[in-house]
Amino acid sequence: MTTTPKSLADTTTFNPVKPLDAVHHVAISVRDIAEAVTWYTANFQCTIAYQDPTWAMLTFANMSLALVIPAEHPPHIAFSHPHAEKFGPLKAHRDGTRSTYISDPAGNPVEIMAMD
Amino acid sequence: MTTTPKSLADTTTFNPVKPLDAVHHVAISVRDIAEAVTWYTANFQCTIAYQDPTWAMLTFANMSLALVIPAEHPPHIAFSHPHAEKFGPLKAHRDGTRSTYISDPAGNPVEIMAMD
Repeated sequence: MTTTPKSLADTTTFNPVKPLDAVHHVAISVRDIAEAVTWYTANFQCTIAYQDPTWAMLTFANMSLALVIPAEHPPHIAFSHPHAEKFGPLKAHRDGTRSTYISDPAGNPVEIMAMD
Repeated sequence: MTTTPKSLADTTTFNPVKPLDAVHHVAISVRDIAEAVTWYTANFQCTIAYQDPTWAMLTFANMSLALVIPAEHPPHIAFSHPHAEKFGPLKAHRDGTRSTYISDPAGNPVEIMAMD
C-alpha cells in the first residue's frame, strides 16, 4: 500500500486571517563580490552585514540582499515561514538560522526559513 | 569643452544618519504566470495585487514579488530611492509609479523607483 503525499498547499493555503509571510532575503548573482558591494553601498543606503570572497549580505530597510558568486551559492529568494519544516528537513546554518531549499514550478530555487 | 559626469556615488554615498533604502519588489522569471501564482499563493500567505498572462504582482508582508515571463519583462530588483531621478530620466508607468532602469556592474537589471 502506498500513501499519497499531502500537497504543500494542504497545510499552507492562504488564510485571510493570518498575517502575510515576509521575504527574508533575495540572493542575486554577481561576477565579483567586492565590486558589487562597492556599487550597492555607493548607490543605496544599506549596510554590510557580512562579506567574504564568495558572498555578501547587505541590510536594507525591509529585507536583506545577498550577493553571490553562482559557482558557490545559487541565486534564490528566501521566505520566512511559520511552518518551514513542512517543506522539508531544515538544515542549520553557521549563523543560527534553519532552512530548507525547494523549487518553484519554473525551477527557481526557493529557500524556506524557520522563524526561530 | 566637455563636462565630466558626476558619478552616482557622489550624490548617494552611504550616510549613517539617513534611513536605509527599501526594496520595493523583486521580479523573478517563471514559465507560466497562472501556474506560478497558484503555487506561490498556495504555499505562502500573500495576496494577488495584479495578474495578466505576462506578469503578476504578489503582495508579501514587507515587499512585493513580481512573477514575469522573460520575453515580456526582464527579471530585476527594484529599490525605492529618494533621489531616483539622479539615476536617469524617470518613465511614468500605468500604475502611477515612476522609475528608471540601470544595471549593476555584473549586468543585473536594477529598477530605481521614485518615492512619490
